[in-house]
Amino acid sequence: MLILSLFFLCILISPLHLSGQSKKSVVKSYDSIATQIIRTALGSGKSYELLKELATGVGHRYTGSPAAAQAVKWAKLTMEKLGFDSVWLEPVMVPRWIRKPAQEAYILESKMRPRIPLSVIALGGSIGTDESGVTAAVIEVESFQDLRQMGKIPQRKIVFFNRPMDPSLFSTFDAYRQTVDQRTMGAIEAAKAGGVAVLVRSLTTRIDDHPHTGVMNYLDTIPKLPAAAISTKDAEMLSKLLREEREVKVHLKLSAETLPPVESANVIGELRGTEKPNEVIVVSGHLDSWDVGQGAHDDGAGCVHAIEALRLLKELGLRPRRTIRAVLFMDEEAGLSGAKAYAERDLAAEKHIAAIESDAGGFSPRGFAVGDSVAYNRIFTWMPLFRSIWADRIIVGSSEADIAPLARKGVPPIGLIVDNQRYFDYHHSDNDVIENVNERELALGTACLAIMAYVLAQEGL
Amino acid sequence: MLILSLFFLCILISPLHLSGQSKKSVVKSYDSIATQIIRTALGSGKSYELLKELATGVGHRYTGSPAAAQAVKWAKLTMEKLGFDSVWLEPVMVPRWIRKPAQEAYILESKMRPRIPLSVIALGGSIGTDESGVTAAVIEVESFQDLRQMGKIPQRKIVFFNRPMDPSLFSTFDAYRQTVDQRTMGAIEAAKAGGVAVLVRSLTTRIDDHPHTGVMNYLDTIPKLPAAAISTKDAEMLSKLLREEREVKVHLKLSAETLPPVESANVIGELRGTEKPNEVIVVSGHLDSWDVGQGAHDDGAGCVHAIEALRLLKELGLRPRRTIRAVLFMDEEAGLSGAKAYAERDLAAEKHIAAIESDAGGFSPRGFAVGDSVAYNRIFTWMPLFRSIWADRIIVGSSEADIAPLARKGVPPIGLIVDNQRYFDYHHSDNDVIENVNERELALGTACLAIMAYVLAQEGL
Repeated sequence: MLILSLFFLCILISPLHLSGQSKKSVVKSYDSIATQIIRTALGSGKSYELLKELATGVGHRYTGSPAAAQAVKWAKLTMEKLGFDSVWLEPVMVPRWIRKPAQEAYILESKMRPRIPLSVIALGGSIGTDESGVTAAVIEVESFQDLRQMGKIPQRKIVFFNRPMDPSLFSTFDAYRQTVDQRTMGAIEAAKAGGVAVLVRSLTTRIDDHPHTGVMNYLDTIPKLPAAAISTKDAEMLSKLLREEREVKVHLKLSAETLPPVESANVIGELRGTEKPNEVIVVSGHLDSWDVGQGAHDDGAGCVHAIEALRLLKELGLRPRRTIRAVLFMDEEAGLSGAKAYAERDLAAEKHIAAIESDAGGFSPRGFAVGDSVAYNRIFTWMPLFRSIWADRIIVGSSEADIAPLARKGVPPIGLIVDNQRYFDYHHSDNDVIENVNERELALGTACLAIMAYVLAQEGL
Repeated sequence: MLILSLFFLCILISPLHLSGQSKKSVVKSYDSIATQIIRTALGSGKSYELLKELATGVGHRYTGSPAAAQAVKWAKLTMEKLGFDSVWLEPVMVPRWIRKPAQEAYILESKMRPRIPLSVIALGGSIGTDESGVTAAVIEVESFQDLRQMGKIPQRKIVFFNRPMDPSLFSTFDAYRQTVDQRTMGAIEAAKAGGVAVLVRSLTTRIDDHPHTGVMNYLDTIPKLPAAAISTKDAEMLSKLLREEREVKVHLKLSAETLPPVESANVIGELRGTEKPNEVIVVSGHLDSWDVGQGAHDDGAGCVHAIEALRLLKELGLRPRRTIRAVLFMDEEAGLSGAKAYAERDLAAEKHIAAIESDAGGFSPRGFAVGDSVAYNRIFTWMPLFRSIWADRIIVGSSEADIAPLARKGVPPIGLIVDNQRYFDYHHSDNDVIENVNERELALGTACLAIMAYVLAQEGL
């Protein structure tokens, strides 16, 4: 009861409701369809089953790897078996970086013990060390500013970036954004200061033993340093030692290789629009993952959200007026080459109404972030459709990931917002496995994508 | 930006806002305090640390057990160490039921295999079987109506209640409420029909190997049958066999004992009100748990929510005008004797403004259910205080558990609402352990309780 009354109040007071009557009827028109989608997604949906196939059948699938190629095959075959109207591959050249088995780090010359191993993982794109590794004293910094203020580091040292994610922030993404520069740009800044290698505290709010990888960058004009993440537990321990002892030396050995780019593909499948087939709503996730864990939340969840959203609509006999297209982008993690390739198409010939993205994990959905004001104003009035599953929040915001190239060409970007408290427990680590995905939370995300895509397909923007 | 504008709109349109100005200022007055509570709870709170002590230091703690007595000691000592103004035990006589080691069930005479073990757990309060167990053919039913329509069961059979929780419902509590009669009343109905024992499908939406226990009832006028839950996986398997074979026999052996009631206690600690010490806001969870797992979500989470809410207010120097009292009720699971005893006090001498309860697990909070219309109308205007952590939902609703006896005496009941998708994965099973509680989600629940209790203490209702 309350739910209904609140929702009508919201509609009445919205500044958008000069045309309130017609918007109210949009919600009314789709209310029973939304319920049907939600109940089917939860009751007999295949989100988890599909994710299990991808996460355990294929496993992790780093851009350019044989596993990524296998994931492309799996996704295409899956969409074909589900009987989507068209399924195809969009070829794209992707970078090819390989982590090799040699990957170790330990503290030596400590008073505590002769050798203390560190849980370490090379950052994505890092060069390896020499065969013999790097052994050097460690200097700890919290920020680039700290580092710059030191001037040139007197001796060749390993620069240790140890600024923690701020656990007091509600949004773990905000905390991530405040610290990720250490990982992405740390090797450049450390090289400028005269460092020989880089250790970065893993980007997670937990204190545990799992190192978290992620992309890092070099500049051609600056010497390249090997760079790795260590677990937060080890970062705390190393920091403690550095406070206690005059000098702490670390030995770091990494082995990695960058090979020439290889051909890979975005995997695309669609339900063709019955009335306006050339108007397209994209629902998307990214098919590549990091080369650890299973890429279950990041972004297997987004892939199955997209595939299963189409399957649900098809199962329920909901034929869209405009085309709904599932796009599984390749190479979100290492450079967005799939997303950029997709956005190069002729958007005059194929009008893209909106691009929806799920890339924040398979957690309970809370709503959407919309990065276009016209789209926001319209979609705002539809949010009561998501109220029954408590996913009716809408904020202004846009993604920096796969749908960004489309957004820059004027396609309204819509991101699925999910509860993000647990995301960085798993992100880019061996913890990102299917066991850490809840079937119901995953299915609710699918329902959100299916409802949003369907209403967009019927109503346009 | 959006958040603020939405919130002011909501306030303006609320029918409660004839006195809109003063209500807006309530939110304004407490906005920075709410932020401070939230950031402290997330950044340096002790919710998880406290839960770890209870869950792993004490472990599960069934009503009347030595472990429950240990939990009482732990809770009292913890509140004392934290320096609450008063800490005391409120004695209460509680029932004493003991599960004994002999607990087994298997299918025999199947064509598939000579003997198929079932994952089984006696329901709480069940009698044991004879030493030799019960061996009988199984009859499967979905409801009491099914059973009644059969009339008297021709031979002595084991009645197998196999109605699943409906996974298509968004609220897992709704699905639970629709099926829990099988567990609570199944033995009575089966006895009426002439059954010899009862098996109940575990109440969870997952298909897994963990049996979930819970309370069951007998009537003195009806023969008592031994009753146990089996895992959902085994329920599915047993059901499949029953469809395939003429007769499926099960052997069930349970051993349990009901001893005389013992003395236990509610554990109570408070921050005394500076202006109106005899006006009380209760924040509560229940200290007892089932005798499996660690009672981490049910209801260790609620206990640490209550304790830590007070500790946070104290740490932040927020001295309440009215008394805020943490009440850890004993015996929620086996009969609410602690809650009933608490409600017997003289509510004229000690005016209870409201009773807040957390008993839905340590998941991300979403808002509150308020079971009193005056309280609802007032608290509705405060909900923007919870908006920054997406916990600003408010619904009309009241608990059937620990705060129900107070509610029946006119004390407004306020229940913390949390995301409940995962709750029944763990509920009353060996899965309810600290590893399945997320530190941040737990801390957010604490923040909600602390804010709500503090505003109630300052503003009254």
